[in-house]
Amino acid sequence: MDFDRIIDRRGTHSVKWDVMEQAYGVSPEDGLPMWVADMDFRAADPIQAALAAMLDHGIYGYYGDDTGYRAAICWWMAERHGWTVDPGAIFTTHGLVNGTAMCVDTFTAPGDGVVLFTPVYHAFAKVIRAAGREVVECEMVNDAGRYRLDFDAWDAQMTGRETMLVFCSPHNPGGRVWSRNELAGVAAFAKRHDLILVSDEIHHDLVFPGSTHIPMALIEGIEDRLVMMTATTKTFNIAGSHTGNVIIHDAALRARFADRMAALGMSANSFGLVMAEAAYSPAGAAWVDGLIDYLDGNRRLFDQGIDAIPGLHSMPLESTYLAWVDFTGTGMPREDFTARVETQARIAANHGPTFGKGGESFLRFNLATPRARVVEAVERLQAAFSDLQ
Amino acid sequence: MDFDRIIDRRGTHSVKWDVMEQAYGVSPEDGLPMWVADMDFRAADPIQAALAAMLDHGIYGYYGDDTGYRAAICWWMAERHGWTVDPGAIFTTHGLVNGTAMCVDTFTAPGDGVVLFTPVYHAFAKVIRAAGREVVECEMVNDAGRYRLDFDAWDAQMTGRETMLVFCSPHNPGGRVWSRNELAGVAAFAKRHDLILVSDEIHHDLVFPGSTHIPMALIEGIEDRLVMMTATTKTFNIAGSHTGNVIIHDAALRARFADRMAALGMSANSFGLVMAEAAYSPAGAAWVDGLIDYLDGNRRLFDQGIDAIPGLHSMPLESTYLAWVDFTGTGMPREDFTARVETQARIAANHGPTFGKGGESFLRFNLATPRARVVEAVERLQAAFSDLQ
Repeated sequence: MDFDRIIDRRGTHSVKWDVMEQAYGVSPEDGLPMWVADMDFRAADPIQAALAAMLDHGIYGYYGDDTGYRAAICWWMAERHGWTVDPGAIFTTHGLVNGTAMCVDTFTAPGDGVVLFTPVYHAFAKVIRAAGREVVECEMVNDAGRYRLDFDAWDAQMTGRETMLVFCSPHNPGGRVWSRNELAGVAAFAKRHDLILVSDEIHHDLVFPGSTHIPMALIEGIEDRLVMMTATTKTFNIAGSHTGNVIIHDAALRARFADRMAALGMSANSFGLVMAEAAYSPAGAAWVDGLIDYLDGNRRLFDQGIDAIPGLHSMPLESTYLAWVDFTGTGMPREDFTARVETQARIAANHGPTFGKGGESFLRFNLATPRARVVEAVERLQAAFSDLQ
Repeated sequence: MDFDRIIDRRGTHSVKWDVMEQAYGVSPEDGLPMWVADMDFRAADPIQAALAAMLDHGIYGYYGDDTGYRAAICWWMAERHGWTVDPGAIFTTHGLVNGTAMCVDTFTAPGDGVVLFTPVYHAFAKVIRAAGREVVECEMVNDAGRYRLDFDAWDAQMTGRETMLVFCSPHNPGGRVWSRNELAGVAAFAKRHDLILVSDEIHHDLVFPGSTHIPMALIEGIEDRLVMMTATTKTFNIAGSHTGNVIIHDAALRARFADRMAALGMSANSFGLVMAEAAYSPAGAAWVDGLIDYLDGNRRLFDQGIDAIPGLHSMPLESTYLAWVDFTGTGMPREDFTARVETQARIAANHGPTFGKGGESFLRFNLATPRARVVEAVERLQAAFSDLQ
């Protein structure tokens, strides 16, 4: 577990590195890619060993017998999250963007409203709109640099046309780990407005000391409208495998989802399945523990460095490696602070407005990279905004 | 290219080996799996090398920059099939069952009829029915052990509710490589009945000496209703990667398909993309040439052995490694000849009726295995039907 090791990802079909210049005008020669949410770390040993065994065998035919795969998922959810999963409730989608899209396709109709608590992961709005549904943006309250859910305001915003809520727990961006009370509030909101509740918990394993993630499935009385989404891809940095899980315990909802999976001829790829089974193991768990420790160091260093710049504030992360930095205090227009980051600091960071209402004054920085690069990023940002000191 | 090498696939998540007993009651201890259409051969060197490079790098993040991947597909289609492909016309689906399903979803409506020339690959009917469309089975004529298209009969069968034809070229099962005249007839049929023509050409690389595959895209006047489907997975035995191509040159059809791909949040996995780029290369082509030569030997041996059994006939394959054996001449009910194959010969072969009308008296045998196993299969079948000698 040498997270400090610098590995050159340029020219390896990495979106984050190889498409950075095209997307941001920041050259991979000396630029720092802090956008796309994958990590610059090598995969855990159990994953490498499983892939090596596949390669040694050398035959990559149709995958069958997923008993071990399902058992590994159940083991992980019980062991790490105190959540009992029925192996028969697990679907494998092509990652969770596809998983979200399949939920929208299955459980809503064109023209329906799909609720998001914004700012939130940009791909949600993208697939909802692409499917001809309306994105209903419920803006969270930024309460002294910490997001708060605002059910009273959102109740007033509902029109009755909304049929689904896609909820992000832990939250990306902003890094909130929701409390049991907050989760119960979300569940009550979903019930009150008769919404299918899709709980995207892809960051559930990346939680820092002091916070505890509670799966939405452990909130009482929500099971009959709940769709859970989890994946190995974020936790273990294997997003390229495009393998995620949609877990539905309610029999009626599960049957509807199964019908759409069959109608769309969906089958998971063997690499993702084999990697997932290897990852969800004691050795995988040890790797994740080490990773969290390392990311905890990165976020502390970054937050301290950023908060030392007058006008900038980095939301303290309870989870995720995605720092959410507010530039409001600079008084600069968005174009200006973004230009400083991209042109002067030569850093590619996600633009806030793509995350929806409330993201306008933010940039999102990916901290899952060797610490030397985080140090370098802080120094560059301090220099780019040095006139504010 | 040691195709004779016996590699134990048991316990490797192989459907063909590890699910055989459950599906057919044939034990992998001494049974011969000749059902699922993948091969018992190791992948080509360029594929192994590409995977080894991924493993050596060890970071499996989001895939980006598919320029080389698209260029490799275009090169292969031009080099091997004389077909010029626009790189912008290529979609990557999760294999071609998903590709077929995406076509049905995009270009037809619930209740529409989707035409199949049967017997044909069983998964077509499965996804069409799962999507709530009607399967319209147009039965081919078995003309002295060779399939013939029967447009006159099929014209009379059309009701006006049909909106799509899923065509298999080369044909699975039966192994026909369609002539230019036959392809022109299919195109004319599609036009006459205003059908979107989906041409599944997944077996296009596996064509034996004496036959030449012609891509449907080379037939004039069909482009505005044509969807082509190709893949590395059958040719190179990498079905586990679940990566296929839907290629649409018509701008209007392409836009509709692109909309559904976006709405369903479809993204290809990096393993399939990297393997495909490596496969579609001169080194990959040399491997395929060697493979065809080997499969040619297998089919000759099998056909000779089967045709020596009174009452059995194996359709001479022009393409594919899927022998289509007619048991009509035995005079036995389906249950009886199937029981002899499974119980006495201990061979798992696909049941004919799953391929639709015209398949009732057939079993499909997969010959893509080391020759010693084909010899063994022939001997077992000869013994199982020895009373007919």
